[in-house]
Amino acid sequence: MAEGTQLIRGLEGVVAAQTALCDLDGANGRLAYCGYDIDELARLATFEEVAYLLYHGDLPKGGPLDQFTVALIAAREIPDALVRAFRLMPKDTDPMRVLQAAVAVLGMHDADATDNSRAANVRKAIRLTSQMATAICAHHRVRNGEDPVPPASDLSHAANFLYMLTGKRAGGAAVKAFDASLTLYAEHEMNASTFTTRVITSTLSDMHSAVAGGVGAIKGTLHGGAGEAVMRTLFEIGEVDNVDKFSDQAIATKRRLMGFGHRVYKAGDPRAAILRGMAEDACQQSGQFKWYEMAVKLHGRIGAAKGLIPNVDFYSAPLFYSLGIPVDLFTPVIAAGRIAGWSANVIEQHEDNRLIRPRGDYVGQKRRAFAPIAKR
Amino acid sequence: MAEGTQLIRGLEGVVAAQTALCDLDGANGRLAYCGYDIDELARLATFEEVAYLLYHGDLPKGGPLDQFTVALIAAREIPDALVRAFRLMPKDTDPMRVLQAAVAVLGMHDADATDNSRAANVRKAIRLTSQMATAICAHHRVRNGEDPVPPASDLSHAANFLYMLTGKRAGGAAVKAFDASLTLYAEHEMNASTFTTRVITSTLSDMHSAVAGGVGAIKGTLHGGAGEAVMRTLFEIGEVDNVDKFSDQAIATKRRLMGFGHRVYKAGDPRAAILRGMAEDACQQSGQFKWYEMAVKLHGRIGAAKGLIPNVDFYSAPLFYSLGIPVDLFTPVIAAGRIAGWSANVIEQHEDNRLIRPRGDYVGQKRRAFAPIAKR
Repeated sequence: MAEGTQLIRGLEGVVAAQTALCDLDGANGRLAYCGYDIDELARLATFEEVAYLLYHGDLPKGGPLDQFTVALIAAREIPDALVRAFRLMPKDTDPMRVLQAAVAVLGMHDADATDNSRAANVRKAIRLTSQMATAICAHHRVRNGEDPVPPASDLSHAANFLYMLTGKRAGGAAVKAFDASLTLYAEHEMNASTFTTRVITSTLSDMHSAVAGGVGAIKGTLHGGAGEAVMRTLFEIGEVDNVDKFSDQAIATKRRLMGFGHRVYKAGDPRAAILRGMAEDACQQSGQFKWYEMAVKLHGRIGAAKGLIPNVDFYSAPLFYSLGIPVDLFTPVIAAGRIAGWSANVIEQHEDNRLIRPRGDYVGQKRRAFAPIAKR
Repeated sequence: MAEGTQLIRGLEGVVAAQTALCDLDGANGRLAYCGYDIDELARLATFEEVAYLLYHGDLPKGGPLDQFTVALIAAREIPDALVRAFRLMPKDTDPMRVLQAAVAVLGMHDADATDNSRAANVRKAIRLTSQMATAICAHHRVRNGEDPVPPASDLSHAANFLYMLTGKRAGGAAVKAFDASLTLYAEHEMNASTFTTRVITSTLSDMHSAVAGGVGAIKGTLHGGAGEAVMRTLFEIGEVDNVDKFSDQAIATKRRLMGFGHRVYKAGDPRAAILRGMAEDACQQSGQFKWYEMAVKLHGRIGAAKGLIPNVDFYSAPLFYSLGIPVDLFTPVIAAGRIAGWSANVIEQHEDNRLIRPRGDYVGQKRRAFAPIAKR
């Protein structure tokens, strides 16, 4: 390693890129996309408007939003070859592995796949946003031995997702909560999966290749995979009355609980507060309020004992569960939101690119002479 | 952005990880894997020995090498479902997109897929090394309307690759050159694709998810994709006599030529010198010496005029072409070598993990109030 350099574990605090997408103020627990506070976006904007905002830098007026919405709806179909590929996959396959393969396959069928111009990238971003949703739902149906539900062109992105997943039209409150969830997950600066898409893009690779990498990254339990891990913890606890005992044991054994803590937010994750409110309503609505109660109690106990604060993935778990989303689709759903940010970051990276290529600190064996096999 | 931090474009010079794998001395143009000079490894070791070295930190003695070789050979089969998936893919698909999907699909069929222990990771590394080679060749046969050539268990990794690709057993010189090429591409510290696998792994995702990301990154023309770009440049030049005119024009129009320059090597890439010698021999052997002559002449002209030095991907182009590798399989072949390093880096990252999560420098719109659509 060159003199004067030193290892920065996890690249903590290193600024890897300029961005006009996400304004993340960890010290004050504030988050904004393109200047708009996440709280207002989650309450007042649709996911379609948020995606437009990320691709174009401003919220759309009526005409452009209509055009954008039409483009998203028109892009919902996935190639029949992809559905046929789903049928070849083992039934118990992790849906995130399916999604990673599906993104690569969607690239094979995308006429703009290798065109890295801004115009082509926006077209691909729209297609990936719609097609990833369809692919997630189609695969879920196929693995259950059902036929995919064709997208409904009169439904919003969020409503259509729930429809393709279940074959039923969800109520207004559920659709709003799901739509807001997609918005809350849409973008988050240089998180590991978005950073992955930037590193891949920086070689002058393309959006599909980059997004497939992002899918691989968000899968981890230190990232989007935390939501599923939280729900499995709640299942393990089982009942509200068990939370105290479980918490005591987790604290005593120093068990790592997912959904707590964040690299950047030290005073609280603003998304968690919004999701908590939505989880409360949704658990009430679903008639299974206990998941919300357990989460609140766990939050209180772990927070008090260890000073840990829930992150975005903590309250999304009981929320998604109450919305009827299968637990192993929590992370795909998160990816279906984050695609807006991933693709916007790919666009930004292509517009002002420099190969992302850090160094390693070699700590291995010193130079040594090769010995032929008989002399080793 | 926090005070005192500043953007480091491309993370140039930032040390992102400790590693015992690759000792890269850019100032002096030296490269070693686990202490062994790349020149000696390329000349004296087989790719199997190099892969073992990267997974275990030492060159194998006879017994362990035999076991390792047997394990690699036993892992060459790919699931029939993957070959059937290849048949569903458009015939003109970029083989790197196929490889990215294939790695995800191989994960679906790998019993250790989500086990991130060292033992499981070494087993997966062995399987991926063998199966990626088979997948590349099987897809190539399928797209040409042929059946895959089953792997030959009496052949080395390199010899078997050429056999599965062409259906013929290659001569000793070709096998040695190809084997050495795989070694030269096996590992290269925090290059963008390896760094991608580390970022993905750092979320506690798994090897297949990480390697699929690496495939997406190495595809770019600022990375492994450069080799194919070099060959297309040589095709464009066409004849040795055209090199001067082409070079003058490229210099005058400031055309970016791939295969020149490197972020880390400033005095020359040691791999390029080795590949140059192998390219000379292979082009002589193939009866198409002109590709080597053109490359040398282009190197001389561009080097003299712009002070640029060829990197690993420059002479690998005429070498691979002379070995009968289709031009659009150059990058898959490079990935088939780099898998050894990718998987070794995944193993290292899992053994001492910290989430890789840098920051962005927000340069977008200041905080602004949300306006309903009618008021925008």
